[in-house]
Amino acid sequence: MKKNPHFSGVVAPVLTPFDEKGNPDVKRFIAHAKWCLEDGCTALAPFGTTSEATSLGLDERIELLEKLIASGIDARKLMPGNGTPNIPDTVKLTKHGLSKGVGGFLTLPPYYYKNMSDEGIFRFFAEVIERVGDKKLKLYLYHIPPQAVLGFSLPLIGRLIKAYPETVIGLKDSTGDWKCTEGILKEYASTGFEVFPGAETSMLPALRMGGVGCISATANVAARNIRSVFDNWQSKDADAAQEKITATRKAIQAYPVIPVMKAMIAHYRNDPGWNRVRPPFVALTAAEAEKAIADLATNHGFRLDFKKKAA
Amino acid sequence: MKKNPHFSGVVAPVLTPFDEKGNPDVKRFIAHAKWCLEDGCTALAPFGTTSEATSLGLDERIELLEKLIASGIDARKLMPGNGTPNIPDTVKLTKHGLSKGVGGFLTLPPYYYKNMSDEGIFRFFAEVIERVGDKKLKLYLYHIPPQAVLGFSLPLIGRLIKAYPETVIGLKDSTGDWKCTEGILKEYASTGFEVFPGAETSMLPALRMGGVGCISATANVAARNIRSVFDNWQSKDADAAQEKITATRKAIQAYPVIPVMKAMIAHYRNDPGWNRVRPPFVALTAAEAEKAIADLATNHGFRLDFKKKAA
Repeated sequence: MKKNPHFSGVVAPVLTPFDEKGNPDVKRFIAHAKWCLEDGCTALAPFGTTSEATSLGLDERIELLEKLIASGIDARKLMPGNGTPNIPDTVKLTKHGLSKGVGGFLTLPPYYYKNMSDEGIFRFFAEVIERVGDKKLKLYLYHIPPQAVLGFSLPLIGRLIKAYPETVIGLKDSTGDWKCTEGILKEYASTGFEVFPGAETSMLPALRMGGVGCISATANVAARNIRSVFDNWQSKDADAAQEKITATRKAIQAYPVIPVMKAMIAHYRNDPGWNRVRPPFVALTAAEAEKAIADLATNHGFRLDFKKKAA
Repeated sequence: MKKNPHFSGVVAPVLTPFDEKGNPDVKRFIAHAKWCLEDGCTALAPFGTTSEATSLGLDERIELLEKLIASGIDARKLMPGNGTPNIPDTVKLTKHGLSKGVGGFLTLPPYYYKNMSDEGIFRFFAEVIERVGDKKLKLYLYHIPPQAVLGFSLPLIGRLIKAYPETVIGLKDSTGDWKCTEGILKEYASTGFEVFPGAETSMLPALRMGGVGCISATANVAARNIRSVFDNWQSKDADAAQEKITATRKAIQAYPVIPVMKAMIAHYRNDPGWNRVRPPFVALTAAEAEKAIADLATNHGFRLDFKKKAA
């Protein structure tokens, strides 16, 4: 692993709870973010894909970030998603986050149009960076072709690093394709570029090639064990521990990941309000939730504990 | 064709010009919108895919719409795109447009997440419609899987019409797949649902099955001839005229459609500023533009005339 990375470890794209009117629920949001940190997360990436970020309005994202920081969470531990399909709104979110002192941003490519050229995506990022015009800006490229379709080719990553070495400092690879993560690590990890696999399933192999941790949906509910693998990645037991967190992840992602994690939190917090998702997502039915929670507990020994703090 | 449709004819998703700083150019935008109407458009759909709408910030879309209406264009002839991936911003754009008296809206599905269920997309639209809560709201579903990936299945269209018969009154089909357009027309045109093919290439067959016109990128530069087919669709020459507009469309779309249309306008208006696009699009180079314009003029007899008004 890289020495002294800007961000590293286990990062949760924090789930966004909603109240009975369908608006973001600030109180539950803050409680969950703090619990993620207690449970083992080293940092948080609010407004990621798992956060239903693109289902939030611009003003909601701004307000939630302010409330999160006002709650006492260290802004330097935050890597909010600032991606929108357009330059002005991305710049707006970025300037706001910088003014609040966040440590970095996780930035989607402009995800509406398809078949855009590397040149066009490069110009998008160049214009965002130049309009923000702040040396404190630290961007992590958010490579998630399963949702954004548009992504970052190896040459494009290299070109962005070369043009903005102090700003474009890392990437989250959510392809779920180890060959892709490996290719990025081989090409850029040695230069100090901070590569996070988008799931814990490939954290250990990534760490061994210079990766810096993982930014993973399931860090919302399973950070403790992922953190343990991260902290002990050079120990002789690391492979066996990695196998366990991989098994847990696979068990969870057998279900729709956002709805099932919300259902788990609702169940173990005894707080049905946590089940809510925003369209186009659909919450699990009570029967679906019950079955999934029982399966995860019985067949995979996976439960949540909101009382016990991380060791 | 349906009698007395709410919108019909030739509708241009108005191109958005940018100034030397990369901001929307209000003056050129208004001039072009007015020219489109003079050239034969019956209505305008600003903030469509061709308008680079998703590359505009929320505030930019609001300001441009206000300026367009303030310029004297009849708001009832406007069907702005109001789509965003989230409910609050879509509601914001919709309420604003309604307050300005626009005739309708062209609404994308929430286009970030993939593999969303019909149930989830239905709930998205239901919540938008209910949050807006205005009987004057008229929505046209924007079915454009090549960009949005998410689209509208036949049962979903039917469910939306049934739930909101006064609001969900039409659809633009930008699949480019006649079988899809035909299926929607067969199922819903007879009930008065207003179906626009997303290109003039299938306008005549659509009109013959109860369609109401077309909403087409190339209506930005070729409205006059498309309008002529629309006005004379029951004449004996209609098929031959349709063949001609189809040939022109195919010639234009052999190039990147947005950049080449901007290059054409720049050339024929003798106004190089029109070439600008916003990233992730990339403008044609001078050589590319020259070649395309020469090809279209020489091999397809296609030129723009900004002096002559439509007959």
